[in-house]
Amino acid sequence: MLRPRPLRIAMVAPPYYSVPPQGYGGVESVVAGLVDRLVAHGHHVTLFAAGTRGTAAQDFVRTWETPPTDQLTLALPEVVHAARVEALLREHTVDLVHDHTLAGPLTADARTAPTVVTVHGAMDDLAGLYRPLGHAVSLVAVSNAQRARAPDLNWVATVHNGIDVDSFPYRAEKDDYVLFLGRFHPQKAPHLAVEAARRAGVRIILAGKCSEEVEHDYYRDRLAPLLGPDAVEVGVAGQALKRRLLAGARCLVFPIRWEEPFGLVMVEAMACGTPVVALARGAAPEVVEQGRTGFVVDRPEQLAGAIRDCAALDAADCRRYASRRFGLDTMEAGYESAYRRVLARARTGPSTSSRSPHTTTATTV
Amino acid sequence: MLRPRPLRIAMVAPPYYSVPPQGYGGVESVVAGLVDRLVAHGHHVTLFAAGTRGTAAQDFVRTWETPPTDQLTLALPEVVHAARVEALLREHTVDLVHDHTLAGPLTADARTAPTVVTVHGAMDDLAGLYRPLGHAVSLVAVSNAQRARAPDLNWVATVHNGIDVDSFPYRAEKDDYVLFLGRFHPQKAPHLAVEAARRAGVRIILAGKCSEEVEHDYYRDRLAPLLGPDAVEVGVAGQALKRRLLAGARCLVFPIRWEEPFGLVMVEAMACGTPVVALARGAAPEVVEQGRTGFVVDRPEQLAGAIRDCAALDAADCRRYASRRFGLDTMEAGYESAYRRVLARARTGPSTSSRSPHTTTATTV
Repeated sequence: MLRPRPLRIAMVAPPYYSVPPQGYGGVESVVAGLVDRLVAHGHHVTLFAAGTRGTAAQDFVRTWETPPTDQLTLALPEVVHAARVEALLREHTVDLVHDHTLAGPLTADARTAPTVVTVHGAMDDLAGLYRPLGHAVSLVAVSNAQRARAPDLNWVATVHNGIDVDSFPYRAEKDDYVLFLGRFHPQKAPHLAVEAARRAGVRIILAGKCSEEVEHDYYRDRLAPLLGPDAVEVGVAGQALKRRLLAGARCLVFPIRWEEPFGLVMVEAMACGTPVVALARGAAPEVVEQGRTGFVVDRPEQLAGAIRDCAALDAADCRRYASRRFGLDTMEAGYESAYRRVLARARTGPSTSSRSPHTTTATTV
Repeated sequence: MLRPRPLRIAMVAPPYYSVPPQGYGGVESVVAGLVDRLVAHGHHVTLFAAGTRGTAAQDFVRTWETPPTDQLTLALPEVVHAARVEALLREHTVDLVHDHTLAGPLTADARTAPTVVTVHGAMDDLAGLYRPLGHAVSLVAVSNAQRARAPDLNWVATVHNGIDVDSFPYRAEKDDYVLFLGRFHPQKAPHLAVEAARRAGVRIILAGKCSEEVEHDYYRDRLAPLLGPDAVEVGVAGQALKRRLLAGARCLVFPIRWEEPFGLVMVEAMACGTPVVALARGAAPEVVEQGRTGFVVDRPEQLAGAIRDCAALDAADCRRYASRRFGLDTMEAGYESAYRRVLARARTGPSTSSRSPHTTTATTV
């Protein structure tokens, strides 16, 4: 079989962290992994991103010298970034634009090359953005659960986030603790993890971010009163500590109380050979293989039993499953297939024939 | 002479307050005044705005039932608003879009009708947005001072903000105080107003907003220590109190320490027959008529003398000047002339001939 023609892809990252990020930055981490695999598969990637160059992309277009990290969630940097990228895109010839930003999709309708957008956030906030944009962008969901919350949008695929599984340490023999890793936030509900671990008779370590006001309030009112010698909170874990904690844990406890669009930490745990005990919200049921790489339960009372049941699971199964389902090559294949579908539609659709030259930012082949 | 053909204008307001605003909302106030005068001059206006209908616009398209006031400056409502307006615009046939939002300009390049954008904010932040947008939008400055900070942008006109002068109370006889009206912020520097009033031997009343962290810090460290029986702070003034305070003051003290793009309160003071004493930053020198409706001085030490000199100025001169230079009809005429210039350019330029139908949101006549 003939190898399909390589693609020229403009990859647009958000401006708030470098790609890959040095610390926090889930989206930037996924973008870095995708870029590297696309290049490894022969494609040409032009990465539009802030900060330092850190991927295999053949072209790197820096949009901000210093990422405006302290302006995360504000309108001005988001809109300036989109305007800047749109202007810079005009100097590049690409088959397709893959946009990971919030404001970027507003500029999609004025270009000839089709635009694929990965929806990284919670659907409840974002449907109001993508619905009016209609067919101007083709959407990729990071989980079927996310997509199911707004099935009428212009979805082209579901592509689960992927990680570099080999970069995670694998341990078959576990230490005597379970782990909570995430924000100290009511949506992440670490207090349920502590209660479950205590009922299961196992020590719990909690690592996570506590910076927003809601997190401070939650920590003070709900979590702090529960801490003790068998429930130890260690603050934010850097990359090295995070991997060590994940690899040593009997399981990751992930008692989410919201429609988590993906939940990358579940995959990172499994990559370390660590099963996941989760509540059945958001993407958890499709990320964990029930009874094999963890347990997804309906009610908080069931978490303790699930923690105990993890003793029967095989660490090697978790690692293999993470590798097969959530490896970078799997993600790359999902995106490449989505790109080709969008390009085929663009060729046959009514939308690419008569744009005027001055609105063209890239050329469709 | 033949009366020129009336225009069909899509007026796009920000989503954070109703138009006109019930309380705070300088941009929304200017938009409301402009809409009413355009309609009075025979034009057809479709207003895209949040909240309650409150102008003479023939068509009102509500973008948010409840304005997202508490999300001011955040990216999500700004971007959702732009996407929503862009979709709603497709249902309307207009000659021209006049956009007052931050993210809206990102969608301009995909429509056939030309887009005029009023730059309401400080140039230092915004040049990075409008420069990459190039000729996709035609910019209107609210002052020559603002425009001079980025003269290379695609400016089409300077149109000073206007107010409904008749709606302001006029008083020729003044009470025995001077007034500071504005945010308690280092940029607005009310502490300089207090020091100057004290040196001039006159009581000062300070009315203003203190809600952001920087404002709280400034108030505590710089302003509060200066307050006393001759320098009284009254908090935020509502519309009625604000007008009463402006009309009764011997002068407004406006000791700005930043490049204020316009400074609507200076015009409101003059409309009440109250002269303005300002530092020569931003638009102050072009808003105040030196020696006739106030004094614009270079250094803070000169403010006290200027306050004293105001006794020689004529309240009626201030009112007349505000009416002639900053009335709604003057603003309307400025915008109508800008609209016609942009439409003439669009007809002769290379940019309106060959957009494909699906990207067309409006029709140029």
